[in-house]
Amino acid sequence: MKADGRHRDATAAARRRQVLDAATRCFRRAGFHGTSIADISAESGMRPGHIYHYFDSKETIIRAIAGEVVERGELEDRIIRAGIASPSAAVPALLNLLKERLAGPDTTANAVVTLECLAEASRNQRIGDDLRAYDASLRTTFEDILRAVRDKDDLGRRFDPAEGALFMRTILSGCVVHFALYPETDPADYLAKLWAFAETIASPSTPVIDGRTEKAGEPGDTVP
Amino acid sequence: MKADGRHRDATAAARRRQVLDAATRCFRRAGFHGTSIADISAESGMRPGHIYHYFDSKETIIRAIAGEVVERGELEDRIIRAGIASPSAAVPALLNLLKERLAGPDTTANAVVTLECLAEASRNQRIGDDLRAYDASLRTTFEDILRAVRDKDDLGRRFDPAEGALFMRTILSGCVVHFALYPETDPADYLAKLWAFAETIASPSTPVIDGRTEKAGEPGDTVP
Repeated sequence: MKADGRHRDATAAARRRQVLDAATRCFRRAGFHGTSIADISAESGMRPGHIYHYFDSKETIIRAIAGEVVERGELEDRIIRAGIASPSAAVPALLNLLKERLAGPDTTANAVVTLECLAEASRNQRIGDDLRAYDASLRTTFEDILRAVRDKDDLGRRFDPAEGALFMRTILSGCVVHFALYPETDPADYLAKLWAFAETIASPSTPVIDGRTEKAGEPGDTVP
Repeated sequence: MKADGRHRDATAAARRRQVLDAATRCFRRAGFHGTSIADISAESGMRPGHIYHYFDSKETIIRAIAGEVVERGELEDRIIRAGIASPSAAVPALLNLLKERLAGPDTTANAVVTLECLAEASRNQRIGDDLRAYDASLRTTFEDILRAVRDKDDLGRRFDPAEGALFMRTILSGCVVHFALYPETDPADYLAKLWAFAETIASPSTPVIDGRTEKAGEPGDTVP
């Protein structure tokens, strides 16, 4: 490829980015269906004809943004897999990743756009297919991790990894709803609370809280 | 009140219902902001002027529908509290209620409208306040139940009821997202899977799965 071709590509990519960022801000404010190309034009400072040069319709912009929700998820999916060296490291690695991901500056602002994408999935077959494919892939990752954890008996339980994956996925989806309702949430703090509860419930050796003595701690009741 | 006054009230209530049902179908298909009064008029078979007689704007209709999401939730909240005679009955009672509720014919179809409401909460202060008030009330119910369960040591764990309430609320919200993405889901089956995982993880006595022997079952490791 020639140098001017690369320059053209970089400019095109920057212009597409400019449209998508402006559209995302509009969608947060007014929803997919409350936003017109004229709104995106005003927000981006680009003429409508210029926007149509990169995206042939608002529908194409919505699909691109839904695609970015999926891409962010798939990237995380790969990081989760790469970061897990052993089953015993799996759960802490997963937790760290979630903490990092949720600490991003746009976490709570993006939640609203994610909800818009999910509502749109029921109306638009292609957006629905994209989101379902990502959902299935994420659950497969969770399932593989949980199977490895179970087979090492790290939790000492014989759970079904597929059910566990569904459970984890449901919690992640529930976080998005919480962030949309409470945009001022500190995601790391929120996740720490969920995790503290899950750990207390799941761990056979339970720490003492409120100074009360535990009835646990009998032989066979403690994980080394 | 005179008989003709009651008749007028009943007719008004039926007409309001007719508008709200038609609007709900439109909102599922096209979202809040993709639906006009003309669409609701066509769907309901009522003239726009007639609709404006009951609701002064589309915004008022949206608020009424968000209010119904809240009302359904508050009704469930009261049923949960009424149905729980003792802490040991709390978790099964809660599960039964969720099963009944999720078995409703409109569960998955309503999920999309609930997501619309949640996205709208970020844009409309009053809808947001209504949904947050309901969310807080539901979490208080969960928290009271979990505190009673913990104090009876039914689970043998010393968890924080507020964290547990947040956890349960997050799972419930995650269910809505799942139903929006997979409207063909059987909610009872879905809930059974989540429950099976939670029970295996939380219960110190774990059933044998896949014919494998458990390492649990030591003294002090079994709930009577």
